[in-house]
Amino acid sequence: MGRSSVEAIETKEMDYRSLSSSEHQQEPYMHKVGVPPKQNLFDEFKTTIKETLFSDDPLRPFKDQPRSRKFVLGLQAVFPILDWGKSYNVSKFRGDLIAGLTIASLCIPQDIGYSKLANLPPQYGLYSSFVPPLLYAFMGSSRDIAIGPVAVVSLLLGSLLSNEIDPTTNPIEYRRLAFTATFFAGITQATLGILRLGFLIDFLSHAAVVGFMGGAAITIALQQLKGFLGIKKFTKETDIISVMKSVLRSAHHGGKKNKKLFWIPAIAPLISVILSTFFVYITHAEKQGVEIVRHIEKGINPPSVGEIYFTGDYLLKGLRIGIVAGMIALTEAVAIGRTFASMKDYQLDGNKEMVALGTMNVVGSMTSCYVTTGSFSRSAVNYMAGCQTAVSNIVMSVVVFLTLLFITPLFEYTPNAILSAIIISAVIGLVDYEATILIWKIDKFDFVACMGAFFGVVFGSVEIGLIIAVSISFAKILLQVTRPRTAILGKIPRTNVYRNIQQYPEATQVPGVLIVRVDSAIYFSNSNYMRERILRWLMDEDEQLESVGLPKIRFLIVDMSPVTDIDTSGIHAFEELHRSLHKREIQLVLSNPGRVVIDKLHASNFVSQIGEDKIFLTVSDAVLTCSSKSPEEVV
Amino acid sequence: MGRSSVEAIETKEMDYRSLSSSEHQQEPYMHKVGVPPKQNLFDEFKTTIKETLFSDDPLRPFKDQPRSRKFVLGLQAVFPILDWGKSYNVSKFRGDLIAGLTIASLCIPQDIGYSKLANLPPQYGLYSSFVPPLLYAFMGSSRDIAIGPVAVVSLLLGSLLSNEIDPTTNPIEYRRLAFTATFFAGITQATLGILRLGFLIDFLSHAAVVGFMGGAAITIALQQLKGFLGIKKFTKETDIISVMKSVLRSAHHGGKKNKKLFWIPAIAPLISVILSTFFVYITHAEKQGVEIVRHIEKGINPPSVGEIYFTGDYLLKGLRIGIVAGMIALTEAVAIGRTFASMKDYQLDGNKEMVALGTMNVVGSMTSCYVTTGSFSRSAVNYMAGCQTAVSNIVMSVVVFLTLLFITPLFEYTPNAILSAIIISAVIGLVDYEATILIWKIDKFDFVACMGAFFGVVFGSVEIGLIIAVSISFAKILLQVTRPRTAILGKIPRTNVYRNIQQYPEATQVPGVLIVRVDSAIYFSNSNYMRERILRWLMDEDEQLESVGLPKIRFLIVDMSPVTDIDTSGIHAFEELHRSLHKREIQLVLSNPGRVVIDKLHASNFVSQIGEDKIFLTVSDAVLTCSSKSPEEVV
Repeated sequence: MGRSSVEAIETKEMDYRSLSSSEHQQEPYMHKVGVPPKQNLFDEFKTTIKETLFSDDPLRPFKDQPRSRKFVLGLQAVFPILDWGKSYNVSKFRGDLIAGLTIASLCIPQDIGYSKLANLPPQYGLYSSFVPPLLYAFMGSSRDIAIGPVAVVSLLLGSLLSNEIDPTTNPIEYRRLAFTATFFAGITQATLGILRLGFLIDFLSHAAVVGFMGGAAITIALQQLKGFLGIKKFTKETDIISVMKSVLRSAHHGGKKNKKLFWIPAIAPLISVILSTFFVYITHAEKQGVEIVRHIEKGINPPSVGEIYFTGDYLLKGLRIGIVAGMIALTEAVAIGRTFASMKDYQLDGNKEMVALGTMNVVGSMTSCYVTTGSFSRSAVNYMAGCQTAVSNIVMSVVVFLTLLFITPLFEYTPNAILSAIIISAVIGLVDYEATILIWKIDKFDFVACMGAFFGVVFGSVEIGLIIAVSISFAKILLQVTRPRTAILGKIPRTNVYRNIQQYPEATQVPGVLIVRVDSAIYFSNSNYMRERILRWLMDEDEQLESVGLPKIRFLIVDMSPVTDIDTSGIHAFEELHRSLHKREIQLVLSNPGRVVIDKLHASNFVSQIGEDKIFLTVSDAVLTCSSKSPEEVV
Repeated sequence: MGRSSVEAIETKEMDYRSLSSSEHQQEPYMHKVGVPPKQNLFDEFKTTIKETLFSDDPLRPFKDQPRSRKFVLGLQAVFPILDWGKSYNVSKFRGDLIAGLTIASLCIPQDIGYSKLANLPPQYGLYSSFVPPLLYAFMGSSRDIAIGPVAVVSLLLGSLLSNEIDPTTNPIEYRRLAFTATFFAGITQATLGILRLGFLIDFLSHAAVVGFMGGAAITIALQQLKGFLGIKKFTKETDIISVMKSVLRSAHHGGKKNKKLFWIPAIAPLISVILSTFFVYITHAEKQGVEIVRHIEKGINPPSVGEIYFTGDYLLKGLRIGIVAGMIALTEAVAIGRTFASMKDYQLDGNKEMVALGTMNVVGSMTSCYVTTGSFSRSAVNYMAGCQTAVSNIVMSVVVFLTLLFITPLFEYTPNAILSAIIISAVIGLVDYEATILIWKIDKFDFVACMGAFFGVVFGSVEIGLIIAVSISFAKILLQVTRPRTAILGKIPRTNVYRNIQQYPEATQVPGVLIVRVDSAIYFSNSNYMRERILRWLMDEDEQLESVGLPKIRFLIVDMSPVTDIDTSGIHAFEELHRSLHKREIQLVLSNPGRVVIDKLHASNFVSQIGEDKIFLTVSDAVLTCSSKSPEEVV
């Protein structure tokens, strides 16, 4: 390297050089730890509330707008269709029309089957695919979600409701309780959205949801298999059905492999239904014991507001069931909405979405619908069929409307077995074994949650699975906050960077100095553990040093970079740590406390206890100062 | 700076220089992010269990010892007296004797008063100061704690028990339920210790405990004041009592100010009791309406194992009350034990302590004692009186034993008012307004928890206060894991250190690069928030840049230093973030992922999705690489 380039670097490199030039008898350049300006209490409180409840800043577009504009924006916020409707055009409608027709053909047989899972007569499934999707199209913000009854919620509702009322002996009360639960499911969803408490559904972990869904799918499939195998002896029918089923399955696979062929699995169910119904009708197979739908009401949704229990014992039961079903429905809808929103890169407002889903279920409960939400299978078909906006839901709704008015009686001859086959082929996609493998690879604790929920549903009940899923999710959170990780840091060669010596075995420790990093906010739940863990690191280290005859530790540097917050218990723990260290003639040094932490260390006077000069911006600053001091200066 | 020193630095400074020498067409020195060697599943599981349940490494002294030595060590682990007893001597006994006599003089009047709080006859308080302290002395590891009935637990027990049984109409059943609750309180404590679940009591935050204790103290004081004021009309007595009370109070203050005078508040209660009892006895004031103790059983603890409900309805009630009372008693004892252990710098084994406390209460329940624990007031006196070991508890126990045998009947003439005064003066010290002020200064959320517990106890009931305290503590944990902090980083001038620009306003951002730090483990509970928050930072930033005509952001560096762990939901969130950024032609870059995180990023294949070369050891490495790339290279 030539002389001139050295000089060139000299100016540029002052920053780095100055860091370690203490041997030249000049003070090394050390930046002070910043103490942010004191916020007043009101501002602090406002910021916390804002980040907790209004983290998406929903009022941002309203800022600095005239009043009339604010009114329009407000309307658009409640009915997003007013916003995107302005730019709606024929080409978009073409996409929506095809997608809408496709999901309609898929939803009609599914609806009839799912209403059986909920122990309700078949027409209620169709009712639920008429009103709610229409409402969602006006209020929802997802462009891809397909609304209607779904397998897991139908099963859950059927299971919870029949714990209270027997659907075969008391069908009317059962139905009334179903509407009551639907009403309160909607109220729950809308309330969470309005109170901006949508984040509560985040407490059901992804892993638990995967396990729960898989377990519910297996349960449903096994239930249906029973009905499906019930007709085994009628060779003729079985043939048709197995043919249909193999058609369905191969088509399903084909659709998965080739995006262009998405319509094969999408319309196969309807075609199977039409063919098998026609076949039963002309051969009168129902007289030879083939179970058929037998009765399905013609006409659109009758009003049901009078059937909801607003008083009495069943009010509370409906409320409880509604809250559970509403939360699960919400989890499913929000998961689907988020997935597709990220695939097409648009923002989804979770809280607004909950208000839309809630309103749709409240109105649904008054028009003979039971709990609806976004369907995994139909939303995927909707997306692949090229839907552009929520108009595809309107198209589907219109098709269901026409079906209810004119074609319903034809379904009376549909064999139950074909419906079972359709349900099985729909739910089997919910068993996400690839996700399970990934969960196993990434996080073993998540895997336990996943399996717990799965086996809970399969061998216990839907409720037990749910309780296990929620409990394990919470246990994980609690474990996280009780036992934070700590690490010993060492200097990575040829840098002034200090990192975990377990991750970087080449990192070297500084003699006489122990550097510990605490990897969590220090709260009451972990402050004692943290203090004891640090003291244990120290003992371990001292034992080792003694055994090889090296000098003892004289400085304990605690790297506070990951410590994002500290509370009174945390400060107490530090005071106790400081006291213990003082007795052992070890100096406590802190590096890089964050904004909130340094504030609280000052407020509690801990800074003056250990000395302002014991707090550094970086670990390397701290090490430089510690190692430049001779042992005599220490205490 | 002379030539030679420049050269001298040149060699030393290679580390720093090489970091930023990319302009010289040579590759800058960048250390790779360490991927730790893969642990096998069993090891990983073992480490987790060890850190969670055996974080204090209790088997360490047993390592590499012969079997006979292991047996001795095991005995010493259960009975620490066998360990410290070996070095016990006369000088230590002198300290313990004085301390023991002092706390005995304090505990006798307190016990009689506290048993009234628990709605039990006065002798049960004395019984509880005889057997449990004796047992604790053999099994406990704290040297300073004074065992016996305490005000808050007595109140709690009295309140919970009388919800079930009326103590005035059914005194026998009430007492039996009290022993049942005590038995299960002991079982709860011992079980927590044996299962090494002691950390569960950490979930009651310090702030909540301060509030709860304060509220309970005020409640007790108000209750006693009623009894205390009930004799106002008898001028003679009132005079004595107010004199006594002012003596007590001034002595109490004197003791606080001057450590040498600790014995004044310590023996003042007993002297007041003796004087007032004598006065009542000679004047027969009880005939003029002064309420006295009236009846107190002579003799030591009768066995009560036959009185415990092991069957029937009351079993479950006793169990429930026992669990609550046991947990509160544990919280108090462990808090006291830890405080004094850190003052004298010895280690306290929380789990072992719980086994000792549990055993003592189980045996207590069989010998007519109710729930006992460490007393704040008496432990402080014990410490100040110069106790050396748990022998002071034995001394106290012996004094109580002698009292029960010979002097008890004398207390029959003790006026209730003086006992009320003693209780008031004891509990008033639990109202820790200084701690409350500190809590307010440090953490506003803690303050809410503290006040919630306080007002819950004062205006609701002990149970309501407790429920509020636990709920707020949990809410805080949940808030912590749902809404982690994020920060925008900037370069601190004259260093290569990147820090929060809100804490360091002088830090400058790098054009075209946005550096975000996520300050928490990324779990299902916060992964969506984290993703949305980062995208919002990006939007805000881009808006600002556009308004001043600067180039748009092309690189998003996520500093993962504080991200200690990530789960499947977190990985999902990152995948979605990556997808969203890709659509906007922004490159996602990660800096300093920790050991666990880099492991999981690899396991989930996310590293290959974003590219191995997008992960850096430090933010400054990442910035150097990003800013050296021209815009065309970006996507």
